[in-house]
Amino acid sequence: MSFFPPSLENLIDKFASLPGIGRKSAQRLAFHILSLTDSEAKEFADAVIDAKSGVKCCKVCQNFTEDDICGICRSDRREKGTICVVSEPRDVLSIERGKEYNGVYHVLHGVLSPVSHIGPDELKIKELLHRVAETDVEEVIMATNPDTEGEATAMYISRLLKPFNIRVTRLAYGIPVGSNLEFADNATLNRAIEGRTEM
Amino acid sequence: MSFFPPSLENLIDKFASLPGIGRKSAQRLAFHILSLTDSEAKEFADAVIDAKSGVKCCKVCQNFTEDDICGICRSDRREKGTICVVSEPRDVLSIERGKEYNGVYHVLHGVLSPVSHIGPDELKIKELLHRVAETDVEEVIMATNPDTEGEATAMYISRLLKPFNIRVTRLAYGIPVGSNLEFADNATLNRAIEGRTEM
Repeated sequence: MSFFPPSLENLIDKFASLPGIGRKSAQRLAFHILSLTDSEAKEFADAVIDAKSGVKCCKVCQNFTEDDICGICRSDRREKGTICVVSEPRDVLSIERGKEYNGVYHVLHGVLSPVSHIGPDELKIKELLHRVAETDVEEVIMATNPDTEGEATAMYISRLLKPFNIRVTRLAYGIPVGSNLEFADNATLNRAIEGRTEM
Repeated sequence: MSFFPPSLENLIDKFASLPGIGRKSAQRLAFHILSLTDSEAKEFADAVIDAKSGVKCCKVCQNFTEDDICGICRSDRREKGTICVVSEPRDVLSIERGKEYNGVYHVLHGVLSPVSHIGPDELKIKELLHRVAETDVEEVIMATNPDTEGEATAMYISRLLKPFNIRVTRLAYGIPVGSNLEFADNATLNRAIEGRTEM
């Protein structure tokens, strides 16, 4: 039922098309837009256009940037011989927050997912292989998520990297720091025991 | 920490300024915008501008419309002598969904809320009084929400309507149809008993 004025219905539809936004939330967001001043609404619309037109993928690591090559890839202080492969740009943010890692990244922009028809060609895998072939890479750390699709993607890529004869590693599994054994799931606990280290 | 490109950070900020959208959700929405095609992103931005510039308040009932007077107020089939007063445009939608009510509406665009500094002048109360004074109104149904602020607003307006000598009513309180006594809160149950009707 189209009850609201067409332009308002259209805005509600647009919000509802965003991931995780249902019809009721979309209504609330659209009503909020109507409550903004004209210039605030324009700023919102401009932000959408500017981000879409201004942001592109770094030619080296495929992370989001407004330049041809991103800040991390341009930096002299990062070790270019270590590439951490992540599935999404937000994962770069997570690892950078730890302030320990000093290598560079490669963003796949997704994971292999036959269900969603995402195959190797949809990801930035070719770009990774090209990078490993052309530059002096010592180690590739597979840092995709520890779920089925992340695992499969890591496995697939590690096989492609075999011929290059470089070190390919995977993030360690185990008990999260500060957590409680009681609440750890069996799979995590088993992996933590398998991967136990000398004290 | 500003980690993403400025235009992307800006878009994330804009999404995060919407009600009920936290930082993580805003990131996800902004990433979704980047994954759209250029024309889809433009459609989204245009929808914001069009809704903001195209939608105004009906001169009679203050509901959202793209015309001077909304469809309900223009309709010959609606009884203009009964005005249902609601706080938000979405409440009109809720009542219309019931398909029982055949009168017209008046949208207050909020409720009295001293905490949020919303007084009578911020609501469309003057417009309601003017409407009651100028047109042939028989009954005003107060249909604000049954919470503290909705109650206070209904009470306040019903007092202002006293001098006009018209019927002023309030939506009935009681057990929701199809619900279970076991889960009804005490206040609702007490109101349901107080308001009991002959069978």
